[in-house]
Amino acid sequence: MQRVLSSELPKHVGEQVSVAGWVHRRRELKSVSFLILRDRMGQAQVVMPPGTELPSEETVVRVTGRVLANEVAPGGVEIVEPEIRLLSGPVESLPFEVFRPSLSPALPTQLDHAPLSLRHPSRREGLRLASTLTQSFRRALQRRDFTEIHTPKIVESATEAGATVFALDYFGRKAFLAQSPQFYKQLMVGVFERVYEVGPVFRAEPHDTTRHLAEYTSLDAEMGFIEDHRDVMRVLRDVVAEMVGAVSDIEVPREIPAVHFADALEIAGADPGEPDLAPADERAMGAWAVREYGSEFVYVTGYPMVKRPFYTHPDPSKPGYSNGFDLLFRGMELVTGGQRLHRYEDYVAALEQRGEPLEPVRSYVESFRYGYPPHGGFAIGLERFAARLTGAVNVREVTAFPRDLHRLAP
Amino acid sequence: MQRVLSSELPKHVGEQVSVAGWVHRRRELKSVSFLILRDRMGQAQVVMPPGTELPSEETVVRVTGRVLANEVAPGGVEIVEPEIRLLSGPVESLPFEVFRPSLSPALPTQLDHAPLSLRHPSRREGLRLASTLTQSFRRALQRRDFTEIHTPKIVESATEAGATVFALDYFGRKAFLAQSPQFYKQLMVGVFERVYEVGPVFRAEPHDTTRHLAEYTSLDAEMGFIEDHRDVMRVLRDVVAEMVGAVSDIEVPREIPAVHFADALEIAGADPGEPDLAPADERAMGAWAVREYGSEFVYVTGYPMVKRPFYTHPDPSKPGYSNGFDLLFRGMELVTGGQRLHRYEDYVAALEQRGEPLEPVRSYVESFRYGYPPHGGFAIGLERFAARLTGAVNVREVTAFPRDLHRLAP
Repeated sequence: MQRVLSSELPKHVGEQVSVAGWVHRRRELKSVSFLILRDRMGQAQVVMPPGTELPSEETVVRVTGRVLANEVAPGGVEIVEPEIRLLSGPVESLPFEVFRPSLSPALPTQLDHAPLSLRHPSRREGLRLASTLTQSFRRALQRRDFTEIHTPKIVESATEAGATVFALDYFGRKAFLAQSPQFYKQLMVGVFERVYEVGPVFRAEPHDTTRHLAEYTSLDAEMGFIEDHRDVMRVLRDVVAEMVGAVSDIEVPREIPAVHFADALEIAGADPGEPDLAPADERAMGAWAVREYGSEFVYVTGYPMVKRPFYTHPDPSKPGYSNGFDLLFRGMELVTGGQRLHRYEDYVAALEQRGEPLEPVRSYVESFRYGYPPHGGFAIGLERFAARLTGAVNVREVTAFPRDLHRLAP
Repeated sequence: MQRVLSSELPKHVGEQVSVAGWVHRRRELKSVSFLILRDRMGQAQVVMPPGTELPSEETVVRVTGRVLANEVAPGGVEIVEPEIRLLSGPVESLPFEVFRPSLSPALPTQLDHAPLSLRHPSRREGLRLASTLTQSFRRALQRRDFTEIHTPKIVESATEAGATVFALDYFGRKAFLAQSPQFYKQLMVGVFERVYEVGPVFRAEPHDTTRHLAEYTSLDAEMGFIEDHRDVMRVLRDVVAEMVGAVSDIEVPREIPAVHFADALEIAGADPGEPDLAPADERAMGAWAVREYGSEFVYVTGYPMVKRPFYTHPDPSKPGYSNGFDLLFRGMELVTGGQRLHRYEDYVAALEQRGEPLEPVRSYVESFRYGYPPHGGFAIGLERFAARLTGAVNVREVTAFPRDLHRLAP
């Protein structure tokens, strides 16, 4: 008999059906017992004769029986006269219960037992939301003529600050795990003009915080033939609106308010000589944007060149400032982006001025001899975005199998 | 003035427009010169006054001029009275010409200069096809209720044969790059029942062949509540049909012929004691399927257990054989899949019987105590699939920045 999903049961009242899933919960009352079955669509109540021995929670079963309408049952139906077959081995003991309204163990224990804790709605729905965000990110970009690319994660040299990179032995040579697809997505602008990639990035972050992971999913985009970073910000606004719209009712204003870095310091009441925004400054900016524009999103533009990587395009009209921006959401950085250098000579000059060596990035820099248009892009950290939207305090809550300073399994 | 794409020019005859792109080619005739501009949609012909100095090939330019209908021009239009502005630095010299009908240098030279060679249609269209394959893989699975997941690429232990794994230093501990998302996608069946992932996998392949890469893109899927591997084969058939249909006219039969491994050896005229199909056997099977069924696709099922990994589900009716299958396309393996073990005791017994240690895979195996349904899945190597469909002899031809024994850059 073909399997019926729990959500389809109301269409089968009076019929003999077969459902399958996990024993979500046993409820043994005096005169009757219930077995609550969980499948990918929801739950189904199975009425068991009193005194039957019920399979333990999380055991996988197939239940064949008749569907009865019962308005007090979940979904308005229940299965009676069931015949039960075990599909998994019987589950003997669990480190914690999945059927409780909230997971009782602390996060580290949940993570130790991720295959189990992720079955709980509080964890499962966070992952599902991340998946929806990814779909809508891609859909928004495909519609705008972006082409998906896959770029190597094993690379010859570190793209960003050298300290936080994982090294590996590559057939006897030293290689690194890519901290971002930055160089490659720029190079692919020369092929497709507009590209995006969804993939893992690796940061050997030595700190143990609620917002850092050693491996996370980066949603990257890069586009050519821009005037400057503001063209990138317009595309990003639309992409973010589509992503946020797919999972929430949060408004993304047609035009997200944008504040220059120097003004942001002033608004936040920070020292005007600061080269970056502190978390408190970001929170102040978030509050300001709500107050002034009723917007939960705010762009900060023109970050100082000293705080941005060497491929950053300077602001031609404001020495020392860049065409780089951050998008803040509810007072926290969500996306980093900007215009990049696109001329070979500018790369050579930028590295020289910073006193950074050309050698490790030579093949990347040399490519700009081949002719590149003005271009820019952005990168969204999927887990941080999902955490922000679900209200998760820790990015690990919306990561299936997080990797950090202490965690390498499961 | 807003940029117009080359493909939009016919709608602008008589108007003043601005186009932008790469100088694809200069053609200097006696009385007139042409500049062929290339953008992401195609090409546009620009008529230059004779004697004008033309920017060199691959320089990025913006051309403003008037659109004239001209039926002998590419696309039926050309741009006259142009004003040209350089957007990139002038390109001084190129290692090879991109405008030739085919790329002249040998593949290694092309790969050394990937950012340039990928601009050639022969290379660019292979990548575009791979991108379309990926889109349709995801679309087919989303429609079938599969959820996208992202699983870690840094792992505690090797999933497949230990010899071909990259090791890295993970905060002072030894870790590995995932050879596949196998374990994780299985564990996620416990959460979503049906999952898929598109991501990089890593193989420290010591051989230098036309079909091996050290890093490639794997299209993985896994589904629960199957009867056996045949349920997986049915879903795979539909997914492959959607992928192939998105990029070609190749027929995928509604039911792909399936041959048991033992029969395949016989058809191929191989020694009946062989534990695997040699490439020549696969070619023989490909020819046989065309001859007997008019099908370019053929399933080989029931591969011997000895050649399959420990998580493989045995065929309950044929000792020594598995519920694992391969999908061959044009006489080459394209997809590997099968049913997996789903009971904790079966894992423990399988490892013991094979004499493989439990310790390295303990956290994975222990998870099966939590209750898993019968499940199975498959993995498609994106680059191999794209190579097969484009007729590329070497997978490197359809990989943007291949990684192999000798190649770590660009």
